[in-house]
Amino acid sequence: MQAIHVINQDEQNTLEIGPVPDPKLSDKTILVKIEATALNRADLLQRTGNYPPPKGASEILGLEMAGVVEEVGSEVTKWQAGDRTFGLLAGGGYAEYCTIHEDMAMGIPENLSFEEAAAIPETFLTAFQALDWLAELKEQETVLIHAAGSGVGTSAIQLARHLYNARIIATAGKQHKLDTAKELGANYAYNYKGQNYAEEIISDVGPDSVDAIIDFIGKPYWHKNVEVLAMDGRVVYLSFLGGHKVEEVSLVPILRKRLSIMGSTLRNRSEQYKIDLTKDFTQKALPLLKTGSLSPVIDSIYDWTDTEEAHQRMQNNKNTGKIVLTGM
Amino acid sequence: MQAIHVINQDEQNTLEIGPVPDPKLSDKTILVKIEATALNRADLLQRTGNYPPPKGASEILGLEMAGVVEEVGSEVTKWQAGDRTFGLLAGGGYAEYCTIHEDMAMGIPENLSFEEAAAIPETFLTAFQALDWLAELKEQETVLIHAAGSGVGTSAIQLARHLYNARIIATAGKQHKLDTAKELGANYAYNYKGQNYAEEIISDVGPDSVDAIIDFIGKPYWHKNVEVLAMDGRVVYLSFLGGHKVEEVSLVPILRKRLSIMGSTLRNRSEQYKIDLTKDFTQKALPLLKTGSLSPVIDSIYDWTDTEEAHQRMQNNKNTGKIVLTGM
Repeated sequence: MQAIHVINQDEQNTLEIGPVPDPKLSDKTILVKIEATALNRADLLQRTGNYPPPKGASEILGLEMAGVVEEVGSEVTKWQAGDRTFGLLAGGGYAEYCTIHEDMAMGIPENLSFEEAAAIPETFLTAFQALDWLAELKEQETVLIHAAGSGVGTSAIQLARHLYNARIIATAGKQHKLDTAKELGANYAYNYKGQNYAEEIISDVGPDSVDAIIDFIGKPYWHKNVEVLAMDGRVVYLSFLGGHKVEEVSLVPILRKRLSIMGSTLRNRSEQYKIDLTKDFTQKALPLLKTGSLSPVIDSIYDWTDTEEAHQRMQNNKNTGKIVLTGM
Repeated sequence: MQAIHVINQDEQNTLEIGPVPDPKLSDKTILVKIEATALNRADLLQRTGNYPPPKGASEILGLEMAGVVEEVGSEVTKWQAGDRTFGLLAGGGYAEYCTIHEDMAMGIPENLSFEEAAAIPETFLTAFQALDWLAELKEQETVLIHAAGSGVGTSAIQLARHLYNARIIATAGKQHKLDTAKELGANYAYNYKGQNYAEEIISDVGPDSVDAIIDFIGKPYWHKNVEVLAMDGRVVYLSFLGGHKVEEVSLVPILRKRLSIMGSTLRNRSEQYKIDLTKDFTQKALPLLKTGSLSPVIDSIYDWTDTEEAHQRMQNNKNTGKIVLTGM
């Protein structure tokens, strides 16, 4: 099959479509003809050699896909050739074919295209893991979602609204991202470039008012996050786009407010964890994707021959929502 | 009734036994004639004015007691006059009488004296909360328990051994405390004064080997803790005896190892939380106190007229295990 290769995996790398061995079907996996995949920041890191795939995973870029079942393994019971499916991959999305464990594959709701379905797994499962499994968000709690224009951010806002009826505070650096956040359900949206979001939250919502924070920024937000957190508040870190070294951290609020500070990435979780997460998501959130209450925010769709251009768009933070690749 | 007063609640304070109003029975509480209470570090802070009791709590020192039921409220169903009982208090232990919600009171096992029973609630419930409810310790995991000679430390070692069959690593600053830790079930015990416990753990147990840490020290242990933690490791902070300001914290391990960093104190939890915790403890751990598998480590017993001397002993870190007051 054809797949996207990274030539010279370092800062000077380039992408190129070329032949690779076909993925091999095993007893519990299905072989999928990929119709669409979507970009993740991990892809940008991996192509420079800074984020190697976990052991056993395909070395090909791409952490999610939507497509059509081509063939099923000998012990597969849930799928047959021709089914439309989508799901998380540990790697291998930038290719014509992939294999996926039958329990990690989800059925594409009829109302969604391949491009829409491909834009769902990483962002929605990551946001679901952060809000539901880690922060354990409860009905009507207050949640602060940073990088609200990102794929995970837009998914988290929708989940926070529709699964928990939460009070939602969003931050982003561009007005159109804040507008999208509000359209998706954010009650408050602050531009971190012109506003001190901690001061704004204290003024608009109240002191010690935030029950859970989904943070991708790290260092520059540490003190402000701690300041706005409520008693029993939780912070879930998903990345550190703004750096990771925090000077002079006081541990006092951790005790005084009984905080929980956590971090997680989805990619290096075990297959069983991802299967369990996918099942829980399928039960709680997939029905809302079928009715359209939840929907992926798609920034743009590129033919996979233009993947370099698509990567540049993400690298320059131009996207609101997901960048999709198709045409493989 | 008589109770211990703090005279001049500041650094120059003194303690004095004198008259106070009797505690008032309500529908769901029981009135207990206190036979013994025990010291906590919170008492030392409170007498200087630095740790005010939570709203609604007695202003009298003392966070736990053992005694005999004197009278029961109109809706009490579980107790009658003459029953031997012990439990957590939000305050009021340094007195002749106290009231306690009937669901926060536990029955004293026949094999335990009042002095032994009074030494149990704060340390065992705090350790149980930290290990079971917060760190969610699992069977045969590895746990690192700092301040292993303290009341909570000695309780945590016993619980880690008997409830989770854990691999236990202890640290303390005195050889006799390390000896006690080993007798109670610690597999490894390091003196933080002469040894770098992180290096020792990496050498004896392995790198990234610690699943959960119960820490009372804070600042000086932050980096070592993070270094030895395993994937999905948890830290529970119960106090910061060594300071709370950590210079230059890297957030990277939080993400890379998927850490959870938490803090909790028991005292400012809601009454309902304490009731639920007491019930869970009664079910899981009280049977082990009855059989003697778990037992309070008692450092010393003072008559309550010598409370000042008892406080000095704790202030100077002389105690291994609990200091008990009796004779009220």
